[in-house]
Amino acid sequence: MSSDQPDGAIEFRSDNCAGVAPQIMEALTAANNGSALAYGGDRWTEELREVVCEAFNAPDAQIFPVSSGTAANSLALAGMCPPWGSVLCHETAHIYKNECGATSMFGAGAVMRGLPGDGFKLQPDSIRAAFESTNWGDPHHSQPSVVSFTCPTDMGTVYTPQELADVVTVAAEKGLKVHLDGARLANAIAALHCAPTAITTDVGVDAFSLGAIKNGAMSTDAIVSLDPEISEQLLYRTKRAGHVASKMRYQSVQLIEYLRDGRWVKLGRQANAAMTELSRGLRDRDIELLAEPQANMAFVRLPNAVHAAWAASGVLFYDMGPDTIRLVTSWQTTPDDVEAALHRLDLVLAAAR
Amino acid sequence: MSSDQPDGAIEFRSDNCAGVAPQIMEALTAANNGSALAYGGDRWTEELREVVCEAFNAPDAQIFPVSSGTAANSLALAGMCPPWGSVLCHETAHIYKNECGATSMFGAGAVMRGLPGDGFKLQPDSIRAAFESTNWGDPHHSQPSVVSFTCPTDMGTVYTPQELADVVTVAAEKGLKVHLDGARLANAIAALHCAPTAITTDVGVDAFSLGAIKNGAMSTDAIVSLDPEISEQLLYRTKRAGHVASKMRYQSVQLIEYLRDGRWVKLGRQANAAMTELSRGLRDRDIELLAEPQANMAFVRLPNAVHAAWAASGVLFYDMGPDTIRLVTSWQTTPDDVEAALHRLDLVLAAAR
Amino acid sequence: MSSDQPDGAIEFRSDNCAGVAPQIMEALTAANNGSALAYGGDRWTEELREVVCEAFNAPDAQIFPVSSGTAANSLALAGMCPPWGSVLCHETAHIYKNECGATSMFGAGAVMRGLPGDGFKLQPDSIRAAFESTNWGDPHHSQPSVVSFTCPTDMGTVYTPQELADVVTVAAEKGLKVHLDGARLANAIAALHCAPTAITTDVGVDAFSLGAIKNGAMSTDAIVSLDPEISEQLLYRTKRAGHVASKMRYQSVQLIEYLRDGRWVKLGRQANAAMTELSRGLRDRDIELLAEPQANMAFVRLPNAVHAAWAASGVLFYDMGPDTIRLVTSWQTTPDDVEAALHRLDLVLAAAR
Amino acid sequence: MSSDQPDGAIEFRSDNCAGVAPQIMEALTAANNGSALAYGGDRWTEELREVVCEAFNAPDAQIFPVSSGTAANSLALAGMCPPWGSVLCHETAHIYKNECGATSMFGAGAVMRGLPGDGFKLQPDSIRAAFESTNWGDPHHSQPSVVSFTCPTDMGTVYTPQELADVVTVAAEKGLKVHLDGARLANAIAALHCAPTAITTDVGVDAFSLGAIKNGAMSTDAIVSLDPEISEQLLYRTKRAGHVASKMRYQSVQLIEYLRDGRWVKLGRQANAAMTELSRGLRDRDIELLAEPQANMAFVRLPNAVHAAWAASGVLFYDMGPDTIRLVTSWQTTPDDVEAALHRLDLVLAAAR
Repeated sequence: MSSDQPDGAIEFRSDNCAGVAPQIMEALTAANNGSALAYGGDRWTEELREVVCEAFNAPDAQIFPVSSGTAANSLALAGMCPPWGSVLCHETAHIYKNECGATSMFGAGAVMRGLPGDGFKLQPDSIRAAFESTNWGDPHHSQPSVVSFTCPTDMGTVYTPQELADVVTVAAEKGLKVHLDGARLANAIAALHCAPTAITTDVGVDAFSLGAIKNGAMSTDAIVSLDPEISEQLLYRTKRAGHVASKMRYQSVQLIEYLRDGRWVKLGRQANAAMTELSRGLRDRDIELLAEPQANMAFVRLPNAVHAAWAASGVLFYDMGPDTIRLVTSWQTTPDDVEAALHRLDLVLAAAR
Repeated sequence: MSSDQPDGAIEFRSDNCAGVAPQIMEALTAANNGSALAYGGDRWTEELREVVCEAFNAPDAQIFPVSSGTAANSLALAGMCPPWGSVLCHETAHIYKNECGATSMFGAGAVMRGLPGDGFKLQPDSIRAAFESTNWGDPHHSQPSVVSFTCPTDMGTVYTPQELADVVTVAAEKGLKVHLDGARLANAIAALHCAPTAITTDVGVDAFSLGAIKNGAMSTDAIVSLDPEISEQLLYRTKRAGHVASKMRYQSVQLIEYLRDGRWVKLGRQANAAMTELSRGLRDRDIELLAEPQANMAFVRLPNAVHAAWAASGVLFYDMGPDTIRLVTSWQTTPDDVEAALHRLDLVLAAAR
Repeated sequence: MSSDQPDGAIEFRSDNCAGVAPQIMEALTAANNGSALAYGGDRWTEELREVVCEAFNAPDAQIFPVSSGTAANSLALAGMCPPWGSVLCHETAHIYKNECGATSMFGAGAVMRGLPGDGFKLQPDSIRAAFESTNWGDPHHSQPSVVSFTCPTDMGTVYTPQELADVVTVAAEKGLKVHLDGARLANAIAALHCAPTAITTDVGVDAFSLGAIKNGAMSTDAIVSLDPEISEQLLYRTKRAGHVASKMRYQSVQLIEYLRDGRWVKLGRQANAAMTELSRGLRDRDIELLAEPQANMAFVRLPNAVHAAWAASGVLFYDMGPDTIRLVTSWQTTPDDVEAALHRLDLVLAAAR
Repeated sequence: MSSDQPDGAIEFRSDNCAGVAPQIMEALTAANNGSALAYGGDRWTEELREVVCEAFNAPDAQIFPVSSGTAANSLALAGMCPPWGSVLCHETAHIYKNECGATSMFGAGAVMRGLPGDGFKLQPDSIRAAFESTNWGDPHHSQPSVVSFTCPTDMGTVYTPQELADVVTVAAEKGLKVHLDGARLANAIAALHCAPTAITTDVGVDAFSLGAIKNGAMSTDAIVSLDPEISEQLLYRTKRAGHVASKMRYQSVQLIEYLRDGRWVKLGRQANAAMTELSRGLRDRDIELLAEPQANMAFVRLPNAVHAAWAASGVLFYDMGPDTIRLVTSWQTTPDDVEAALHRLDLVLAAAR
């Protein structure tokens, strides 16, 4: 059985299109041995708890495997924000634009508030401006309760630890909790060459999603909570949302294998390296990148006719509007993929002349 | 890597404790080949749609893979019941007793109403009594909107197709929709020696859960909707609940393999056969069964001291209160498991004399 | 403009059918003088806060005027019960049977659990049994979080302060909060000849509804919260439910006038006295009362033919099923009403012989 | 008993601060005569239904009295928008900025989407732009389902019937329902010198709030639904939200009196006339108005020092940020109020020179 792509297709549509990392698939096979207590009462889930505490240097960390990033973010936010609260995030955030009201549903009417900010990042000033436009304690107004940042952002930019610390400092002035949408967290860590704690535990994040699925896992993302009060809520919120797997061992073993020995960061590094090569190749051909890709995503200016021809050659990507495309690499993208894609682009450009 | 059970343990706690059927594990491995469009845009998901329509002889059937039975039932019910509606079910139903308010959450305050009924089954009379105690059209009262039956029931009994038809007939008198909690649907079909359509499509069920996880799948259950209006709702409801897998191919391939060539019914048959052997052995030893096991579950009267000793011998089961235990077999239970368990029971009984 | 009842009709259908007490109507007219800050920033609302603290001898009490008993109870419960919690109440409770899922909606899927109990009252033993059947800390099960009792009950019986204290003691063993549905609170206080604090502040109730509308107010009931954490929630929950009146002065002035100088208890006493006379008259005629009326409500056994004839004579009441009717008196029921109703019954009974 | 304002205060803070129109207060007193069936089974409510159908020339119109504008708008929107839908409104709309998530709560996670538009009005182009940025049928995106406009807007501007018709035409292209936040509907009708139907029934509005409270009612606003499917939903949604008054006659009689003989438009005209006088006076004094007041609201540029002194003279208004105030007139504002306020302003201006 082969992939469902045409022969010779090269995948840059989304890291969600990639397969499962071979070590994770092997671990799944190995775990399929005999019976195990359901709903997390198994030894893999116990081990996972230890792996997480160590990975994030947080003895009280709790991990909640859930089956999607949507669930990881919206359930975490529901556990952090009262129904009358608002979640402040960047106006381009996935949680604001692409979740069909998931946080408002799980959060019993909590609302999202999209803020502007350069580089697609929340800026201390935009949060302060949101604070200033709020009538605190006035029940006519949803009360800002959580700051959620996405790193890398949905446009591929990466906060530095200092930028995050600045955002957290402003949030703390008003007692807001801090959430990190880590849909591509490993790519951020790889891009920053930092420890996983540098943009989580150390900067004061209260809960975050792990982003395992885009980066080599099969069927599980997870919420990591560093705050016991949030953890208490998530115990119940995940279950009643149908996100506590009965055969939890198969979720836990993916995450153990993902986090063990820094595999997740290595996988993220592979994706980033492929993007570095790809974007260098594009620049060498005088093609405009809308921003310098910092992780595994690029937004590229290409005339419609050119990108249509490139697509026709079997290079898969998303059309983002007039003369603009998005390219995403994954742990699975090989140097050969990049080279072949650029070669096909050369042919297209030559034909266009 | 071995199971997390002690050596020689024999598993009767729950079919949720069983592993993944080998053919399903192989299909997962085979699907891990190259990239595939996310969120169900892949060829496996397309194939799954065809497999489901054929399996249930329903050209308009839609399948929604979700990651748990909790999700499968509560999201389906939310799509079938208005917020001011009630779901009528048996007072022992899992959806009523064990879901921590999931249906009320997803259903925006829809309520569950537990009804009595012999054999742990909904009876036409108890539904009629519920209808008679309702002030129809009076907004003081949640309006009965869905009848949900569980087959096999949570106590292991099985509705006959005629019994189901009788329930559906009463529901139809007031225009209620009909939901089937199919957590162990394959076990019911195996027990009834009927076609899968006999207790779904043919009797007028509008939507049901498939129950794949307990019976050999890994990480996916599913909702099957036979009603386009419910399907339209579920398109959105599953996504915003975080139950649309980004790497959907790995969910779909499990379900294809599960349903293909009647594998699910064969797996259910294995579980039921093990229970038949086990319960025969218990009766041979003059041990009381609270009801005649019809599928893969038995409730057994055993003095506390006896069952404690049996448990100490490595036979795993749930204690259900004074002198009562629950035994559940799965597709994975072997004849040797049953024989060994009965042998250990003989030793316990001999020592007790 | 006259009432909408036929001439000579005598009202025993519901205390909700009664009018507004004249002193309250006068206070409304007097408050309609000039302008006042909206949403509770007026001097009447300020005065109301003082009146409530004094009436219930609770310096931290907060009052939240809302426009119905449904709102008063369901919003209070939503502020007391987490979404994964359950509210334990008697199986005949109005909040369980007659609110169309209001608490589950406002409570984001919190569920109600109806318990049996003699005299239509929650008993310590039924609460303990509910506790014992709960898997505490297991997210499969809604966690008992609030005990709600109704006093008088929906069947007209009244808890003694000792009975309440016993219920509260059991609730406290597991840390549950205590809610009182005070739909007819004044009738209970009048029946018990006790201080208002005796069944509220003194027994450990955390929040209760005041029940003003049935007993002489026009358009406002209220939640009284004795717990600052609940009050903090209600500040926001009442507003976003649309239950913070913009012209709050007209709500507050009703409640001031209601509570001032014990008027509410006097009004309740009038209703109870009318019921005492009415039930004495019924007993004198050898008519069976299903229970001894303790407040302003009686359930009476009367052959269908007899009560149909009584109704035809202009006596208004509710038919509660075969040979059973409900009679409710209000602050507005006069001794003449009672005497006339009994006289008409005599005529009916004579004709029936 | 006098107002809670200091002697000589002149009220321009909000029309919510005004009292109850004397004819409405008299009707309330007159209705307080005998008993009446609860929850809308009274003759006033029956009469109200006829009055509404006639006022809006809509034989199928249904009216739902609710106790606030918050309730009127958020319940109507919840009945018009599926949980996965979005409500498109102007980015300055009260329902978007000031309701603490009420629509998302009642709408089970439906979201609000604020759009730009000149004159604080929704423009066909901004709705079209929202449509174009939507992935229709893609469950990642809340699906635009309702267009809600506010007339007059929260900034005091008024849509012409033609402007409304243009908005409705665009909404209809995608099958959206149309909601009108009529918090000051009478002021709009008075400003436009049009029939009430001209901006409701005739332009294709599906449901609207009546805005009675700000314009002379006491304790009731209302939803008017012109669509039987919305009406069916509201029957239940209003009840379970606690917005069906038990003593409904007192709500209905206010609304009868409000609508009868066009009183509401007369009251709105009084408020508008006062604003016309006030704004003329301001312009005569060379004071800048941020927009030409079309109804009963003005935003005025006044140096902080000047407006502080004016406030100190007993003229009540809201400070809207640097050098800006809001002035609102009501049905209760008299020519003397306006003259006195302008006179005090003259003194302030003279002192400032």
